Amino acid sequence: MSAQEALHNKFRVIHNLNHASQYLSWDEAVMMPKGGGLARADSLATLRLIVHEMITSSEMGELIEAAREQNPTDEWEAANLRVIEHQRERSTAVPPDLVVALSKASSACEQEWREKRAENDWNSVVPLLAEVVKLTRERAVSLGEALALDPYDALLDEYEPGLKQQFIDPLFTRLVEFLPGFVDDILTRQGPPEKFQGDFSPERQMELATRLMKPLGFNFARGRIDTSHHPFSCGNFTDTRITTRFGADDFLESMYAVLHETGHALYQQGLPQCMSDQPVSHSLGMMIHESQSLFMEMQVCRGDSFLQFAKPVIEETLSVRGNGTPWNLDTLSRAVRRVERGKIRVESDETTYPLHIVLRYGIEKALLQGELSVEDIPDAWNQRMLDSFGIELGDDYRNGCMQDVHWFAGLIGYFPCYSLGALTAAQLYQAMVREIGDIENDFVAGRFDRSLGWQRANVHSRGQLIPSFELIETVTGSPLSCDPFIAHVTSRYGSGS
Amino acid sequence: MSAQEALHNKFRVIHNLNHASQYLSWDEAVMMPKGGGLARADSLATLRLIVHEMITSSEMGELIEAAREQNPTDEWEAANLRVIEHQRERSTAVPPDLVVALSKASSACEQEWREKRAENDWNSVVPLLAEVVKLTRERAVSLGEALALDPYDALLDEYEPGLKQQFIDPLFTRLVEFLPGFVDDILTRQGPPEKFQGDFSPERQMELATRLMKPLGFNFARGRIDTSHHPFSCGNFTDTRITTRFGADDFLESMYAVLHETGHALYQQGLPQCMSDQPVSHSLGMMIHESQSLFMEMQVCRGDSFLQFAKPVIEETLSVRGNGTPWNLDTLSRAVRRVERGKIRVESDETTYPLHIVLRYGIEKALLQGELSVEDIPDAWNQRMLDSFGIELGDDYRNGCMQDVHWFAGLIGYFPCYSLGALTAAQLYQAMVREIGDIENDFVAGRFDRSLGWQRANVHSRGQLIPSFELIETVTGSPLSCDPFIAHVTSRYGSGS
Repeated sequence: MSAQEALHNKFRVIHNLNHASQYLSWDEAVMMPKGGGLARADSLATLRLIVHEMITSSEMGELIEAAREQNPTDEWEAANLRVIEHQRERSTAVPPDLVVALSKASSACEQEWREKRAENDWNSVVPLLAEVVKLTRERAVSLGEALALDPYDALLDEYEPGLKQQFIDPLFTRLVEFLPGFVDDILTRQGPPEKFQGDFSPERQMELATRLMKPLGFNFARGRIDTSHHPFSCGNFTDTRITTRFGADDFLESMYAVLHETGHALYQQGLPQCMSDQPVSHSLGMMIHESQSLFMEMQVCRGDSFLQFAKPVIEETLSVRGNGTPWNLDTLSRAVRRVERGKIRVESDETTYPLHIVLRYGIEKALLQGELSVEDIPDAWNQRMLDSFGIELGDDYRNGCMQDVHWFAGLIGYFPCYSLGALTAAQLYQAMVREIGDIENDFVAGRFDRSLGWQRANVHSRGQLIPSFELIETVTGSPLSCDPFIAHVTSRYGSGS
Repeated sequence: MSAQEALHNKFRVIHNLNHASQYLSWDEAVMMPKGGGLARADSLATLRLIVHEMITSSEMGELIEAAREQNPTDEWEAANLRVIEHQRERSTAVPPDLVVALSKASSACEQEWREKRAENDWNSVVPLLAEVVKLTRERAVSLGEALALDPYDALLDEYEPGLKQQFIDPLFTRLVEFLPGFVDDILTRQGPPEKFQGDFSPERQMELATRLMKPLGFNFARGRIDTSHHPFSCGNFTDTRITTRFGADDFLESMYAVLHETGHALYQQGLPQCMSDQPVSHSLGMMIHESQSLFMEMQVCRGDSFLQFAKPVIEETLSVRGNGTPWNLDTLSRAVRRVERGKIRVESDETTYPLHIVLRYGIEKALLQGELSVEDIPDAWNQRMLDSFGIELGDDYRNGCMQDVHWFAGLIGYFPCYSLGALTAAQLYQAMVREIGDIENDFVAGRFDRSLGWQRANVHSRGQLIPSFELIETVTGSPLSCDPFIAHVTSRYGSGS
């Protein structure tokens, strides 16, 4: 057996163990009764430990070295080896004791956060979060040394390989220059919120979800939709699962959560079938994944053409009618494109969302670099909230610095991917239109095969064959920039729109 | 670390991997979209292989030996070691090549059976089943040599440790002497079937299921019920899951499937919490598991006292009314205790069920001992069907020798546990009544805590502390016999009832 074959076999086992973790996590969020929690956590920890031990074993090191010496010429094999090497580098960089300590500290902190957030109790979580930040900093230093990266860059690299601050900074600076004034202008022109009524029962909303997912290309023979506390997507390309939740008074929030997760799911369902049990066939990092969900949600589904198709479907499924405001294409468009300076990231629109991310990016960088202590997060948060949003938070921690799970769960370095994903989505969409011409009439007719075909060919079917930033350049002809995003929001929300 | 501690750690890992297999199998049967099948099979195979390798490793052998030398005095530790030794003996007895070959042959045969059964095509499955039987025979011989058992006994031992033909034969002989004439007598006295109507929608039937499961003691904070192609139960004691399926024209079949699976689930939910990640805390073999499901379904829930409680619940939930026959306690009792000489095991009542089992027991023994070839199964089956049931099957293979999945899936030696479970259930129930006195008024009042408490104390909470046959004797005061079962059916169905 060649080293390459032996490596394939190892990663086939890892793939099968990760398969188990993945669907057990889905089960935990969607199906598992409360009592099953501890046993499930133990099982997941065992699966992850076995994978970690396999990747960090000396045998794996020797196999990788031998495979590298054989210098694979096939592009898929070469890319697979690159991805494997990156995984091993990251896995061996952190001492096992630190991995365990951070995993325990994050679990404890996340659990405490769930409870204390409900009580708006910031002080109780401070010591736990301080421990998470301290251990994450140690981890970032270890990773940084091994990968020759600045510590925070070493964390960014986890969620999107190759991502660095020097890349993010000019993009975010441009967004901060442009967006606040742009949003001000929208708000002066925007009327009162639209209100609709109808049958918003979970059964009807689920029916609407599946009636929209099918034409968008979601394959129900290889996936399913369920409900959970927070919408998410997961799964491999033969079994891709998304979730949503249903509000009783509004259908749009759930509908757009479904469209967003459908974007993620279509990426998973479109991954390459060749070498499907090897890392190269998996999706790229979070920036690209988010670009696919936002391509669907923002670029395609908040546009008028999609709404022309969706309106009668919504009307028929939910018996929607006006409620004070009339129900028509115009009011529907305004409702799905409403802009608001709000406290909550996940409720925000595409023009204010990046400002939420920039706020978090600044704070988590300062935290990691030791320039800000955990105790001072609320002050820093509130000051930035006042500066960027004009909102006085006071001691409303629940809707302030306690709103997101990320830091409490040890996910530092993740936030930037959301907005970089939005920029990527806009740039990809622009490239698609340049390439295949006007696509809006397709959407009006409820046809999404040409746009999905373009995504499949250019992004999905490539797996990790080409690294993210190279992929963006290859597909769009330029490095990632803010221009397409700014052009997009200007065209959609600007005073001339 | 002592050998005992090291052994605990190993079996904790095995427990966590088996946890994964278990809920992934549940997911496969209940949730998974069709497309996910191949990837799921690969993941399950990997998990099982890792467990097999751990159990058969030389390191495990040394640990077991060292733990045995330390001679544990604690009864739970001693029992745990006994169970572990038995698992290792069985796992190391069969050459790995044979394990793989049999697993592949069984998978292929089971898949073929699913397809060909629908077409009533016996001939197509013969070569695949012949291969399964041949490999199972080799496996039985290997196991028999290692365990000093007759080959068929070595298979029986897999499903219920310690079970042997010399134990089964006199019990089955007695059943065959008694039941046919007894059934004849019932059939001469039995009127036409009862028919009811009502709202038998899946939602209403699911509501009925949960309304019955709760008072029986099923803890929904540690379990759930769903639908699947065939009813089954699975899960650990903190997360126990059962399934059922719903017919459109009848509610009783599903309701009794639920009550049966609830019996299995209550056993799981009542297992000991001490050493819960060690083999000793798991349930005993299939005979005892089946005794717990039949204790609930047959002993408790097909009796008049339970029906007095259940009738108004059914009435209210399903709006049941008569359909030709009136709807009252008398007709309901007759419906749930209807006896029929039918072709199908899973549809049969408690008086004819053992005859189905005896038929299969005779054939599988002959198959394994090489006295019967696979080609001759239909003739043997049909002859026995004619002798025991007076039914001429002809070439109706689908409802004859192709009706059960067991042999096609490589499960030879499993069938006897069903009827031994029925005998055990009757004997346990008799012992309970002897000990706690008349319990029928509890059931009329919808109270099941005293009977469940008795099961918990005597069976559930013991895990595998005491081997099955010893347990039966300890709890009931006598070895397993047919007498309580015959007394039970005589009292329930006899001419004096």
